[in-house]
Amino acid sequence: MQLGMIGLGRMGANIVRRIVRDGHDAVGFSRHPEEIAKMSEELGDGFSGATDFPHFVALLEKPRIVWVMIPAGSTGAVIDQVAALLEPGDIIIDGGNSRYHEDIERAKALAPKGIHYLDIGTSGGVWGLDRGYCLMIGGEKEQVGYLEPLLKSIAPGVDAAPRTPGRTGAPSPAEQGWLHCGPAGAGHFVKMVHNGIEYGAMAAYAEGMNILHKANIGKASDDEHSAEVAPLENPEYYQYDIDIPEVTEVWRRGSVVASWLLDLTAQQLFADPDLKDFGGRVSDSGEGRWTIQAAIDEGVPVPVLASALFERFASRDEDLYANKVLSAMRKGFGGHNELPGQ
Amino acid sequence: MQLGMIGLGRMGANIVRRIVRDGHDAVGFSRHPEEIAKMSEELGDGFSGATDFPHFVALLEKPRIVWVMIPAGSTGAVIDQVAALLEPGDIIIDGGNSRYHEDIERAKALAPKGIHYLDIGTSGGVWGLDRGYCLMIGGEKEQVGYLEPLLKSIAPGVDAAPRTPGRTGAPSPAEQGWLHCGPAGAGHFVKMVHNGIEYGAMAAYAEGMNILHKANIGKASDDEHSAEVAPLENPEYYQYDIDIPEVTEVWRRGSVVASWLLDLTAQQLFADPDLKDFGGRVSDSGEGRWTIQAAIDEGVPVPVLASALFERFASRDEDLYANKVLSAMRKGFGGHNELPGQ
Amino acid sequence: MQLGMIGLGRMGANIVRRIVRDGHDAVGFSRHPEEIAKMSEELGDGFSGATDFPHFVALLEKPRIVWVMIPAGSTGAVIDQVAALLEPGDIIIDGGNSRYHEDIERAKALAPKGIHYLDIGTSGGVWGLDRGYCLMIGGEKEQVGYLEPLLKSIAPGVDAAPRTPGRTGAPSPAEQGWLHCGPAGAGHFVKMVHNGIEYGAMAAYAEGMNILHKANIGKASDDEHSAEVAPLENPEYYQYDIDIPEVTEVWRRGSVVASWLLDLTAQQLFADPDLKDFGGRVSDSGEGRWTIQAAIDEGVPVPVLASALFERFASRDEDLYANKVLSAMRKGFGGHNELPGQ
Amino acid sequence: MQLGMIGLGRMGANIVRRIVRDGHDAVGFSRHPEEIAKMSEELGDGFSGATDFPHFVALLEKPRIVWVMIPAGSTGAVIDQVAALLEPGDIIIDGGNSRYHEDIERAKALAPKGIHYLDIGTSGGVWGLDRGYCLMIGGEKEQVGYLEPLLKSIAPGVDAAPRTPGRTGAPSPAEQGWLHCGPAGAGHFVKMVHNGIEYGAMAAYAEGMNILHKANIGKASDDEHSAEVAPLENPEYYQYDIDIPEVTEVWRRGSVVASWLLDLTAQQLFADPDLKDFGGRVSDSGEGRWTIQAAIDEGVPVPVLASALFERFASRDEDLYANKVLSAMRKGFGGHNELPGQ
Repeated sequence: MQLGMIGLGRMGANIVRRIVRDGHDAVGFSRHPEEIAKMSEELGDGFSGATDFPHFVALLEKPRIVWVMIPAGSTGAVIDQVAALLEPGDIIIDGGNSRYHEDIERAKALAPKGIHYLDIGTSGGVWGLDRGYCLMIGGEKEQVGYLEPLLKSIAPGVDAAPRTPGRTGAPSPAEQGWLHCGPAGAGHFVKMVHNGIEYGAMAAYAEGMNILHKANIGKASDDEHSAEVAPLENPEYYQYDIDIPEVTEVWRRGSVVASWLLDLTAQQLFADPDLKDFGGRVSDSGEGRWTIQAAIDEGVPVPVLASALFERFASRDEDLYANKVLSAMRKGFGGHNELPGQ
Repeated sequence: MQLGMIGLGRMGANIVRRIVRDGHDAVGFSRHPEEIAKMSEELGDGFSGATDFPHFVALLEKPRIVWVMIPAGSTGAVIDQVAALLEPGDIIIDGGNSRYHEDIERAKALAPKGIHYLDIGTSGGVWGLDRGYCLMIGGEKEQVGYLEPLLKSIAPGVDAAPRTPGRTGAPSPAEQGWLHCGPAGAGHFVKMVHNGIEYGAMAAYAEGMNILHKANIGKASDDEHSAEVAPLENPEYYQYDIDIPEVTEVWRRGSVVASWLLDLTAQQLFADPDLKDFGGRVSDSGEGRWTIQAAIDEGVPVPVLASALFERFASRDEDLYANKVLSAMRKGFGGHNELPGQ
Repeated sequence: MQLGMIGLGRMGANIVRRIVRDGHDAVGFSRHPEEIAKMSEELGDGFSGATDFPHFVALLEKPRIVWVMIPAGSTGAVIDQVAALLEPGDIIIDGGNSRYHEDIERAKALAPKGIHYLDIGTSGGVWGLDRGYCLMIGGEKEQVGYLEPLLKSIAPGVDAAPRTPGRTGAPSPAEQGWLHCGPAGAGHFVKMVHNGIEYGAMAAYAEGMNILHKANIGKASDDEHSAEVAPLENPEYYQYDIDIPEVTEVWRRGSVVASWLLDLTAQQLFADPDLKDFGGRVSDSGEGRWTIQAAIDEGVPVPVLASALFERFASRDEDLYANKVLSAMRKGFGGHNELPGQ
Repeated sequence: MQLGMIGLGRMGANIVRRIVRDGHDAVGFSRHPEEIAKMSEELGDGFSGATDFPHFVALLEKPRIVWVMIPAGSTGAVIDQVAALLEPGDIIIDGGNSRYHEDIERAKALAPKGIHYLDIGTSGGVWGLDRGYCLMIGGEKEQVGYLEPLLKSIAPGVDAAPRTPGRTGAPSPAEQGWLHCGPAGAGHFVKMVHNGIEYGAMAAYAEGMNILHKANIGKASDDEHSAEVAPLENPEYYQYDIDIPEVTEVWRRGSVVASWLLDLTAQQLFADPDLKDFGGRVSDSGEGRWTIQAAIDEGVPVPVLASALFERFASRDEDLYANKVLSAMRKGFGGHNELPGQ
């Protein structure tokens, strides 16, 4: 089977590598000829490339399969450009991180032209080349079926995890790492919620490790204690110097909190036990925000997921004005002065 | 009636002023003779003072009433010292911010000596001299009744707020600003919860004002936008330069969020519209923490009160290690680098 | 001055009453002739009414002032209908609870016709007739100025609260209870945040009172304790039967948490001390949700406001599926059975 | 090596099975002779048992190793009883879920008698027999070293997970699944935080799945919509019927949220796709509560972990009184009636 890939950044290139490795063909699009050349050299006959859309489209067999894997901000414009060159029956895939609202609009806009549209939420990060990508797919069932050979090459496959007890016979697509979640937008919807969960789970580990990190707070003398807080009532309970890298390691085996996130955390902490490579300002992308907004639309309580998002905002000092207001109130009723530079 | 006051800091001195102003007598204790002298000069015959406990106790009429109004950390030791000089029938009051657990222990320890113990949670801040103090009282009913003349002078009185519709006849003690909440510890328990509520309400205003503060975020050009966040989808919705001091003023009249906290906020914002006097590090005292711990003991969900407390912790960068862990995880699965100094 | 009012429900009718009481004229629109008749009888010459739009518009002096005060879902359609009958220079006001996004669209749509549009967030509830309404206004400065005589009659006026120390001379509009917050949408934006704060402050009180409510949990015998939780470590700390109606009353005077919300709570608790009139399912309207969504767009952390919203969702059992998932997980790793009907 | 085990419930019995399987000897204590008989039959020569403490102690070789694996509430009394029969050099292990404060007291109390005390937080649930137990250990380093042969048999071993990149040579104890975390109490401290993290991670999944569960809310007609909430603005965005069991399955492979908790969730959802076996009331045990209390003592913000705990409280309707207070407030200012039975 043949796949056209627009965008040869890390994820696009690695998806191409996985399918070519499995005997499929790939046509790549990039504005940068050197990117095309490099991929050609690496992948040989299985790969051809183009630096303009007409050439790219001309290299594709019908029905054409065009996977767009570029930053979410540019996806819409690129789809418009390439769609103008496609024909009824062709398939466009957005594998990036678009908001699922846009998928619904795009599918609607492309339908009259007979062009099919799939949204594929793709998880795997820098590990996808080796481990495969988890694929959450929205769109028409028939097209998803048509793409199965490619999806199988991109996804991790059933051996990536032990089968769930009770599941027997031929593995379902979900067991192979790809799932048709529903009509247009359903793929990015599920991927969005996936990322929302990821924020929450990450925060759970991070908060817990912070408690371990401060477990020696009782060793500080009273002089060292800040005037900002009440003295610790039971310093004898906070005398531990916990080796956090080792704790993350021990939890990897047998414990209820074992996870891939924990594996990665243990790796990072082994390499940099004091986390001195990090400044403490944590970015957030759209999915975490959209998850909360969807929950609010649905009337679903998500205090954990929302708290995780807000912690990232606060890590970037977006709470500063609110905190100044609090200090102003404290001055107002209690005469407390919480000055700048303290 | 006569009141002995240990501790002539702002609150102790102002309570003394209120009772002397009403024709009661006060005996003050302070280690600093100049504090005694100053109060004597100000208050004349109604006030006498002592710098050691035997002298202080000798100045008191029986049954002696000893109000202790000093920082919570020293209260226990001072009560022990003075209790050794008292007699059956005397009354010790802790008007400070002790944890209510201690009240229960102290009342139990003093009971065999026939000394009565009351805990009085006292709210009023720097405004109590003029407005009166809200008094939440724990201990034996009989002693609370005995103290009524003093409590009336210290509390705001019924005219401090319009009577609740339906309440007629002689105002209840609560309507006058003091309440016997229950046995030993009940006063500080209610005061503790009061402060927990205060944290939550303060945070509600502060968060809301932060939303107003950032209402012009859509005016920033894309270049100014941080690489740390997704671009704003609808910048046209965030083009407002809200005059926050005026907003706090308008809310003071007719709106559902009118409150004394809002009055104080409006005052501070009028005096310092840009809050440049504040650095954004917000202290917390014991009550906010104890409130959450009591809620957890009781199995009562308090996400709002707890969030308010945690925001204060985060304002002092106590979230730093957790945030570094998040960055480490993000590097681990996505190759993101969130470096120090960024 | 003359005001046209579309919608004679509680808030619309009370605004009409306030302006007529001050000597202004009002023209009311209602589909129900009996509503018109009742208002005419009550208000006499100051009021006239119509049951169709052409008649309503014909009764108005130019430039016409049309205040729309109807449920948010119908506002857009009504504005379209009436705008078709207006002329350049006329003014439409949305005094309801529209999302501020719509104000921006509407102002843009009406501008080419020369019709001015103001959005006025109006707070006051069932109390506005007596206390006046707090008015948060978005739109063009000139029109706000033109409406000043009416705004003065609708708003509470400066005497509704003590002036903020330092504010002298002629009271600013904000001190009178109305504020021009910015261009189109700014009024509803500030009102939205106001309601978001209201949710947070309400939740702070409610959570705190729940802690007071459970302060006697230590009296339950072990047998009564649920198998669902660990036994209470220190039952001696939870032996209080707090009189919550009296606590809300005592906090009204002198305490930091005194507020109008607390006044209303004290009223309700005096009338129904056991809250037996309420079932525990709490509604939410759009503003609370929009506030969180705006905060997320702005990247502002609002854990308190969001928690308050989520508590309302959970009060309506919208957390049920999530809780079942938790039980399923607990069964999965620990063999715990948390059955239906338990 | 020989281990004495007090308590032959699921976890105690399975630990015994693992060590006997590896060639060690076990002496079991149970009040129920039939439990002893059953284990003897199953395990043969490797196992002997007693139903009273003197007999149990007599069966142990010196230095005796006594592992106590019983419900936390009884642990203290049992340790006292058995300690009275032990000699200097013997070792007592608490493998249950005691609060770490108690470990500190117990170690202190046993030290003068020359009896060593270890606290071993043990994670593994119903899976530990096959997978091994993750062991978090507090106490003296020397005793931990002495016990190594037993710990190796109980823990999962290094092969239970791929080694962390960079870790070479002989696996550290943590890599084998057991870790000496620090002095007395450190094991239960780390286990406590582990459980706190577990609560947070579980809640992240559960909240996310609730969003998926409600993704079809836009299909409800307006009539079906509750009067309790504003109408959905964009029903077209909520038209998905997500197959949640399949989603949990697809996430198991390649995705960032893959974890053992997710594996177990997928198992449960495969067996009971509609979760009809669960009622939605979720228990909590001490560790989740103690984690938050420790965080508060340390001044560490833990909004995610706390929210997860509070959701469990609310699942058991512990928010009811607070919700009634909210309804009372809403009636007070807006005339809203939220009646019982609605």
